Amino acid sequence: MTQNIYDDDGFFAGYSRLPRSVEGLDGAPEWPVLRAMLPDLRGRRVVDLGCGFGWFCRWALQQGAAYVLGLDVSEKMLARARADGGGAAIGYRRADMERLELPEAPFDLAYSSLALHYLEHLDRAMAAVHRALVPGGRFVFSVEHPIFTAPAAPGWVAGEGGRKTWPVDRYLDEGPRSTNWLAEGVIKHHRTVATYLNLLIKSGFTILRIEEWGPTPEQIAAQPAWADEVERPPFLLVAATR
Amino acid sequence: MTQNIYDDDGFFAGYSRLPRSVEGLDGAPEWPVLRAMLPDLRGRRVVDLGCGFGWFCRWALQQGAAYVLGLDVSEKMLARARADGGGAAIGYRRADMERLELPEAPFDLAYSSLALHYLEHLDRAMAAVHRALVPGGRFVFSVEHPIFTAPAAPGWVAGEGGRKTWPVDRYLDEGPRSTNWLAEGVIKHHRTVATYLNLLIKSGFTILRIEEWGPTPEQIAAQPAWADEVERPPFLLVAATR
Repeated sequence: MTQNIYDDDGFFAGYSRLPRSVEGLDGAPEWPVLRAMLPDLRGRRVVDLGCGFGWFCRWALQQGAAYVLGLDVSEKMLARARADGGGAAIGYRRADMERLELPEAPFDLAYSSLALHYLEHLDRAMAAVHRALVPGGRFVFSVEHPIFTAPAAPGWVAGEGGRKTWPVDRYLDEGPRSTNWLAEGVIKHHRTVATYLNLLIKSGFTILRIEEWGPTPEQIAAQPAWADEVERPPFLLVAATR
Repeated sequence: MTQNIYDDDGFFAGYSRLPRSVEGLDGAPEWPVLRAMLPDLRGRRVVDLGCGFGWFCRWALQQGAAYVLGLDVSEKMLARARADGGGAAIGYRRADMERLELPEAPFDLAYSSLALHYLEHLDRAMAAVHRALVPGGRFVFSVEHPIFTAPAAPGWVAGEGGRKTWPVDRYLDEGPRSTNWLAEGVIKHHRTVATYLNLLIKSGFTILRIEEWGPTPEQIAAQPAWADEVERPPFLLVAATR
């Protein structure tokens, strides 16, 4: 089973204070780019892998989705998602995405935000998502970018001329990385860009678009702390179709 | 026009001494992976964008290709390619790939090894390649990896524990990079992985496979100098189909 760090009290408390937890989708700087990769949701059936507090599920319903299923491994996050309501057209279910089981072809869109890098067996999850989509259905997801997850010692280093550099090593050495983010010993699984894309293709998907997200000048003006992120992308965003 | 650094006397002399110039395809460590991305060449018509000394053109003919067209901007390289023969089934032509003009749909395979990162206007070249391929035709190419081309100051940095790190910055800042490789002021155009792939998709290609090349343990045993390359891939290899 995937490490369920989100149910760790300290992690959960820290995560709950992040802008994306307090403000929802608009607190996530990559959201405008991810949103642009989504199809029209009117009348569509949607599954959200790693739904967290349910922000995306509620938004999808507002966009006219017919039904939204939110899956997450964290009881605490699901409890808050359920408490925030949404009605009969949203279902929340606890699921270990390492052993994802979904019915065949009931969904038009599978969505996942910053969750898949926790999985050890991504091939199984991608195969399950492919089976769960109708032909022409779409899979849109974000993960931490492989340049971000690769290093043995992730963290900015002062480069020449005051510019910060990101010290890439171990890029081709795929596997778990233990980081101290909100809690100690958070396990994420580093994969290369090639592996993410080749797993999709092998599962039967056609790649529609990829984005390596960085902040816009307007976002940097509003949040100067994001300026460094243009040096190396923190997020990889992918849209594919069955 | 693309900077024609290959006709610079000093650059040409240095390039001519590289293993891949002396030994041909087998002197290029990424060749086994690139070769595996190629279709069966028997009876096929092939165009090589940036053919250099013609090693690939001659190899394609040995594999049974019906016809091979080698294009390059360098007079010196074409002169040597022509001197190495190949018969009537190989044609060599001088071409500026920034203004690539190819007839419509006469080719089954377009191939390019470590040449496209010299182009400022890659979108035009990709559109020309797409038009020149038959439906189902394949485009297989390698470029210097965006992680490799991004930094303002490319070069290994000693990291913790003696491990070398590659100081990534400017990754999202696409454009020319001036490097001193075999000659001073060699201009290459940095693009992100996303840009390479999205340009292909926008041109009408379907992506079949991507590889971020690094040496195998056997290659490192034979060439210990390549060991560092596992820390960050030097080459990006892509196969796509029209």
